[in-house]
Amino acid sequence: MPPPRKILVVDIGGSHVKCVATGHPEPVSFESGERLTPAKMMRKLRRLTRGWRFEAVSVGYPGVVREGRVAREPPHLGPGWVGFDFEAAFGCPARIINDAAMQALGGYAGGKMLFLGLGTGLGSAFIADGEILAMELGHLHCAKGRTYEDLVGNRARKRLGNRKWRARVADVLEGFRQALLPDYVVVGGGNVKHLDRLPPRTRRGSNAHAFRGGFRLWDADSGGSATQREAP
Amino acid sequence: MPPPRKILVVDIGGSHVKCVATGHPEPVSFESGERLTPAKMMRKLRRLTRGWRFEAVSVGYPGVVREGRVAREPPHLGPGWVGFDFEAAFGCPARIINDAAMQALGGYAGGKMLFLGLGTGLGSAFIADGEILAMELGHLHCAKGRTYEDLVGNRARKRLGNRKWRARVADVLEGFRQALLPDYVVVGGGNVKHLDRLPPRTRRGSNAHAFRGGFRLWDADSGGSATQREAP
Repeated sequence: MPPPRKILVVDIGGSHVKCVATGHPEPVSFESGERLTPAKMMRKLRRLTRGWRFEAVSVGYPGVVREGRVAREPPHLGPGWVGFDFEAAFGCPARIINDAAMQALGGYAGGKMLFLGLGTGLGSAFIADGEILAMELGHLHCAKGRTYEDLVGNRARKRLGNRKWRARVADVLEGFRQALLPDYVVVGGGNVKHLDRLPPRTRRGSNAHAFRGGFRLWDADSGGSATQREAP
Repeated sequence: MPPPRKILVVDIGGSHVKCVATGHPEPVSFESGERLTPAKMMRKLRRLTRGWRFEAVSVGYPGVVREGRVAREPPHLGPGWVGFDFEAAFGCPARIINDAAMQALGGYAGGKMLFLGLGTGLGSAFIADGEILAMELGHLHCAKGRTYEDLVGNRARKRLGNRKWRARVADVLEGFRQALLPDYVVVGGGNVKHLDRLPPRTRRGSNAHAFRGGFRLWDADSGGSATQREAP
């Protein structure tokens, strides 16, 4: 099967769902949140993308995906995601990937890359020579009863203020760097805009990376998992 | 260059250095420890392996290795390891790899595997479709000022007793499983013998795995990094 020429990319986040497609590079978005079910999302998406044509869909999902299927309900959205049939809903082939992994793929430039996504929670992914590993490092415990996500998620940022939050992010980033030993780190997610400086061997991710990751999922030679090795 | 036919495998641990070679399958070993320098190790190794013939050496090193070189002094041995010239010392080609990564490679059976090595400290590695990622998960902070290594290393086992230590190991293992999302986990290292049962999708590693990993490092098709996909 040749790769599809027109692709819809849907990036489901904890606060917004964002969407672009081939020929529609300007993202459209709507609010997400703890009551968003896949049925509600599809209704809004259909309205916002009326008239858009696409042959395939990439979905970045904010939770655990196994073998191309949603494996767990998302921590920050409504229910009904496990077992939801995206291909039936969109009426075309669909590839589902963890949202952090999708953004990581879009920012990948070869070698061993750790991606950390600062958003509602803390997304994470590791890419090793083109192999994408979605991770849930945010759920690791780092202090009594608290996870890394509790430490640097958006709730912590609002409570602490940006200055203290930045110091924490720097610590967490350095800890993961020492533990996972990547060649470089990409920090993305909606809250990366609140970081002023980045440590050495660290790059800034962006929403554009998420969309590019979605397009890359359908690259001819990728089979849905490999990647291009160009500079980000 | 064809792969070497006779290989010496040296597994440097925090408490012992163990060694086998092609034609010498019975391990010889001597005590390691906080005062072991590479020069001392070489003297003992030469004595113990007198008359052994080999064309290449694999070294499992209990610390950070980058691009085939020791990148940091080991936490549990003496000084002098960074910059030590193993090829000059052994007089033949040498491949240096993190000790946990070497044992992981020996127990690898395809897919995404997390390896945890329960020894003096907590070793770790991840293999994703043949790509070996040495990690230092033991150094991640899990509670105020304490690392995972403090939680389940040998010092904790001695202080807590095996029963409490086992419960901690089970928690840590489950936490890493949820965070790193491997297909299966292999638990090795000298202290795996103190575990009675293993959780689902978890296998027991062994010293034999470490040696097999060392031999696999020189497999014809591996170039020093890829792996075979046979069952362990």
